[in-house]
Amino acid sequence: MVAQTVRAAVAGASGYAGGELLRLLLGHPGVRIGALTANSNAGQTLGSLQPHLLPLAGRVLEATSAEVLAGHDVVFLALPHGQSAAVAEQLGDEVLVIDVGADFRLKDAADWERFYGSAHAGTWPYGLPELPGARAALEGSKRVAVPGCYPTAVSLALFPAYEAGLAEPEAVVVAASGTSGAGRAAKPHLLGSEVMGSMSPYGVGGGHRHTPEIVQNLSAVAGEPVTVSFTPTLAPMPRGILATCTAKARPGTTAQAVRDAYEKAFADEAFVHLLPEGRWPATASVYGSNAVQIQVTYDEHANRIIAISAVDNLTKGTAGGALQSMNIALGLPEDTGLSTIGVAP
Amino acid sequence: MVAQTVRAAVAGASGYAGGELLRLLLGHPGVRIGALTANSNAGQTLGSLQPHLLPLAGRVLEATSAEVLAGHDVVFLALPHGQSAAVAEQLGDEVLVIDVGADFRLKDAADWERFYGSAHAGTWPYGLPELPGARAALEGSKRVAVPGCYPTAVSLALFPAYEAGLAEPEAVVVAASGTSGAGRAAKPHLLGSEVMGSMSPYGVGGGHRHTPEIVQNLSAVAGEPVTVSFTPTLAPMPRGILATCTAKARPGTTAQAVRDAYEKAFADEAFVHLLPEGRWPATASVYGSNAVQIQVTYDEHANRIIAISAVDNLTKGTAGGALQSMNIALGLPEDTGLSTIGVAP
Amino acid sequence: MVAQTVRAAVAGASGYAGGELLRLLLGHPGVRIGALTANSNAGQTLGSLQPHLLPLAGRVLEATSAEVLAGHDVVFLALPHGQSAAVAEQLGDEVLVIDVGADFRLKDAADWERFYGSAHAGTWPYGLPELPGARAALEGSKRVAVPGCYPTAVSLALFPAYEAGLAEPEAVVVAASGTSGAGRAAKPHLLGSEVMGSMSPYGVGGGHRHTPEIVQNLSAVAGEPVTVSFTPTLAPMPRGILATCTAKARPGTTAQAVRDAYEKAFADEAFVHLLPEGRWPATASVYGSNAVQIQVTYDEHANRIIAISAVDNLTKGTAGGALQSMNIALGLPEDTGLSTIGVAP
Amino acid sequence: MVAQTVRAAVAGASGYAGGELLRLLLGHPGVRIGALTANSNAGQTLGSLQPHLLPLAGRVLEATSAEVLAGHDVVFLALPHGQSAAVAEQLGDEVLVIDVGADFRLKDAADWERFYGSAHAGTWPYGLPELPGARAALEGSKRVAVPGCYPTAVSLALFPAYEAGLAEPEAVVVAASGTSGAGRAAKPHLLGSEVMGSMSPYGVGGGHRHTPEIVQNLSAVAGEPVTVSFTPTLAPMPRGILATCTAKARPGTTAQAVRDAYEKAFADEAFVHLLPEGRWPATASVYGSNAVQIQVTYDEHANRIIAISAVDNLTKGTAGGALQSMNIALGLPEDTGLSTIGVAP
Repeated sequence: MVAQTVRAAVAGASGYAGGELLRLLLGHPGVRIGALTANSNAGQTLGSLQPHLLPLAGRVLEATSAEVLAGHDVVFLALPHGQSAAVAEQLGDEVLVIDVGADFRLKDAADWERFYGSAHAGTWPYGLPELPGARAALEGSKRVAVPGCYPTAVSLALFPAYEAGLAEPEAVVVAASGTSGAGRAAKPHLLGSEVMGSMSPYGVGGGHRHTPEIVQNLSAVAGEPVTVSFTPTLAPMPRGILATCTAKARPGTTAQAVRDAYEKAFADEAFVHLLPEGRWPATASVYGSNAVQIQVTYDEHANRIIAISAVDNLTKGTAGGALQSMNIALGLPEDTGLSTIGVAP
Repeated sequence: MVAQTVRAAVAGASGYAGGELLRLLLGHPGVRIGALTANSNAGQTLGSLQPHLLPLAGRVLEATSAEVLAGHDVVFLALPHGQSAAVAEQLGDEVLVIDVGADFRLKDAADWERFYGSAHAGTWPYGLPELPGARAALEGSKRVAVPGCYPTAVSLALFPAYEAGLAEPEAVVVAASGTSGAGRAAKPHLLGSEVMGSMSPYGVGGGHRHTPEIVQNLSAVAGEPVTVSFTPTLAPMPRGILATCTAKARPGTTAQAVRDAYEKAFADEAFVHLLPEGRWPATASVYGSNAVQIQVTYDEHANRIIAISAVDNLTKGTAGGALQSMNIALGLPEDTGLSTIGVAP
Repeated sequence: MVAQTVRAAVAGASGYAGGELLRLLLGHPGVRIGALTANSNAGQTLGSLQPHLLPLAGRVLEATSAEVLAGHDVVFLALPHGQSAAVAEQLGDEVLVIDVGADFRLKDAADWERFYGSAHAGTWPYGLPELPGARAALEGSKRVAVPGCYPTAVSLALFPAYEAGLAEPEAVVVAASGTSGAGRAAKPHLLGSEVMGSMSPYGVGGGHRHTPEIVQNLSAVAGEPVTVSFTPTLAPMPRGILATCTAKARPGTTAQAVRDAYEKAFADEAFVHLLPEGRWPATASVYGSNAVQIQVTYDEHANRIIAISAVDNLTKGTAGGALQSMNIALGLPEDTGLSTIGVAP
Repeated sequence: MVAQTVRAAVAGASGYAGGELLRLLLGHPGVRIGALTANSNAGQTLGSLQPHLLPLAGRVLEATSAEVLAGHDVVFLALPHGQSAAVAEQLGDEVLVIDVGADFRLKDAADWERFYGSAHAGTWPYGLPELPGARAALEGSKRVAVPGCYPTAVSLALFPAYEAGLAEPEAVVVAASGTSGAGRAAKPHLLGSEVMGSMSPYGVGGGHRHTPEIVQNLSAVAGEPVTVSFTPTLAPMPRGILATCTAKARPGTTAQAVRDAYEKAFADEAFVHLLPEGRWPATASVYGSNAVQIQVTYDEHANRIIAISAVDNLTKGTAGGALQSMNIALGLPEDTGLSTIGVAP
């Protein structure tokens, strides 16, 4: 039972991340939705921009500003990168600010500057509670950096192998994402005519901005630098990430040791479901849910550990992860307002 | 607040209707899920058949029988047509039996025999509460016939025009359905390779079994026989129905009269959303939700009323409609456990 | 055997219609591809814009102008509406100019002005050879107006019923189109994230610009004004139109009379395939081909003729139809460089 | 100009490989289509099974037997594995037999038995002409083993790195395939409702039958055993393979050396298109074509070579590759009847 109600604002309510935050917040028993802001879409009704959010159809978006966002208990920032720091500073330390963007994810300022081309804003507690040590840092925090969608899927799939010392520090990851991961800005290569019936890679060769975030997560768990060859691909579906993650096994690795490591890592996790042996995840199974489905195997012939995860990039990969962290930060039960049930078929 | 908990069984839990029933029942605060049965899939875990229903992953399906289904407060029958009557008879009059199949929808035995080729089992109160008179018949009832998915979409789109006497009794309907409407039995024409990238009609020329059901609903409201030219088409998407419904306008019809009729018809309905003028429904907006989005216009040039509705065939079109009727039958708030929020994009 | 080679230019080569024209022209044994022009994409290679056209990957697009387009035997204009007349005038009467756009399709200047909001440029021979009288007007012509994609699908599906006097002059048409029919300009509602998994209508109530073109075609065949209620819908597929076309049958109509009318209408047509009774068209079957698949039935109960056609909106609906008309205008065998074989599954 | 016409039979004409063979054979100027056979579909018209092949709509499928297949110059076998040897033996040495199935691909009998569970039938010249040495073995041959679709995509993407000695003998491959790669047999997990909107892996951990074939190809080029970690995934599209292939670079590898190796490997290949630097392949670009689009880069940070290829699994990956080999075996120009132009968007 939720004791009290918090008032939440969403900056960037007209995008896909903002829409998913609202979808989930509408179902959260401890939240009342306050200000909704946008940039170019300010002045429009939510009904015209997010027609699936019927209960909010009549709400009019305001222009994003600290004034409008002030006076809430929680503020979600779903803004283009580089804009969150200025807003957060004005909101005050007593407000829980949850940045759905990238600004506060990276610890290494040089990494930030290399991949984002601007000054590093800082580092906030990292909103992936299932990572070793992450949950404790979120408890009571007034600032949360929500992980990227790919880093969520990849880090959860691989960290148990590194935590157990089973994998060499060179990971190879190929991940397929639904198109909503590329955002709502109208770009020719994201047109339905272009993406339906097509698979294509992008940001190949370490160029994707999520690479340093994955490296940061895995290296922290491994206790040594892990290099990651990360290739994202665009798949003809609106949602979902399937991350195929492999690493060479360290000498002495056995299938049982791998299984044990993953069972131990997720034994107490409400949202991570290690599938029974022989079954593999599908993105459809986590559609719209905060669940992560994972399977792992040890390929003796190639001497590699293969871990595959499926998440909904907008839910667990963005808005659901944000709510999960909010719950922890506020001392609410971690799964309040979050579901492990996918919408399938 | 739900005062007490009812125990619900689902017969046919391995199909798409059964899966959607369970997805919704898991979120219903007044229901505890009891027996789950199947035919050829009996003995398997739900996790292997419905991997999106994580909380039930370990449940094993039993063979469908009256014995297994006995002892519940509510029994949902998601069975092939022709099988519900025998089961229902054995369950007793004190059990609320909700037939998701077709067996008890039609009033005219000759219609049933012509379209289904077997003896007519009878007629139960019809689970489309928004139809004139339907809600009252459901209150306290121990038997409910859940409407077909197409009849749900079409009847809601057209009945206000007939209720207000604005339309001639000859409707023309073309509807597109996602593939889950065709069920989970593996048939070659339903393979992903066949349906992706393709639109195709079926049951053309009045041959679809949902035609007499639509005729029955509209004729009852019109107070005279309404003929319906109904063409269903299969669309390359898993869920959703978009029904384009037109009828010639009666002399004297005006755009304002049409608008008024629809606003009046749905003013008090929680699940039917008449869109603001100028906006049209899309199936994505109701994905996974119990909402119906409707828009209507009067085409002066062609002198026709055009009403278009979007529903999720598995939710409002099947399982959500079933729960809505269950709530009414049990005296619960009608929207308990049901949402008007779609999963989009 | 093709006696000589014509030199063809394409204005608007970076769009979907332009790309499809080039795909087909590359396979036409009597054509050599000359100038390729674009507007905002001028200066780019075709390889970066149309990566499927490997043989032309290195070609650089020039800015559209009469100078660049001069000196060809055939010029295809795939330009935004309103721009073709000025270009055509400068090209001279000896050049075969084929307008893939709308400018010269309508005969009624008032219709043009109402639907397009600009001055009417004129009327050219109409490039739908299968329509009564159309082929003769194309032979030797130096100007061709290529029909719209919807009018192609709808006119072919319905004209035999009107030609044979079987249908009342009030047609009701609902058509589903793939997204390429909406063009390549990046608009938010055409993003893959928006269209996948969704069906939605647009231009409802007679507002679509193809309505007067359909009316024009059917009225000419019927010999009296035919009103058309036309509702286009956007389907989650890149290509294809499925047009469901119905009209009330005139007294005395029989199923056999309907069948006879359609068999007679298409007996000598290379590209229109009237399916055997009992089978219905699917857009996948005509993917990338110039074929039209049609089926028709008489629904006695509703007293309506139902004709359904499937075309590829970019091939028979645009570029293939353009080449077919080019062949006729040049005196080449009508099917040169055109195929009736779809790419399926 | 093709001097003479060969008569070709297709066994297995009702499946996806058979349909694609016929689509291409219809466009091959030197081929006349003879007997068409099937197993369970014998007796049906091709029009009802492959409605996209209009020119053959009236052809009736015969039951597969050596008698029916005799008397042709070329016989394509698109049969379930294990059935080709018996048929081939009866056809005689003067008939060109092209096995689209797996029976004669592997050299190592133990590999065959481990992955297919039956006796090894033998090894035929391998129909991937772009592989070092392969083309010469095909010239004049009367037997051809057509490669698997994944081995086609993966071997072409990686062999230049091994040929140039740039890669360590441990490759990691993740490939996404359209659903037609899984065949036309109706299985529940291949239903449109299941695959649309979903990505899922299968045959993980070396279990896919194409793994030993990839290993065989790469090891032959490398001159040493290459291990391959191969993870295939099912993508929500009908056609296409995108293969992301990586291998650790050997000491001293440079980006230029990698580029040079790939340019050299494909300089004279009509069907393999190494994209300009900075552009990456998409499966839509090769839809229905025999082209392979490849890009490669050297990721210095991860010290890995990343090569990505896109093919149409049914065309270059199956039927197009078969025709290409047929052309070589018969002494025809290698690209007769084959196109590098995709059907896009």
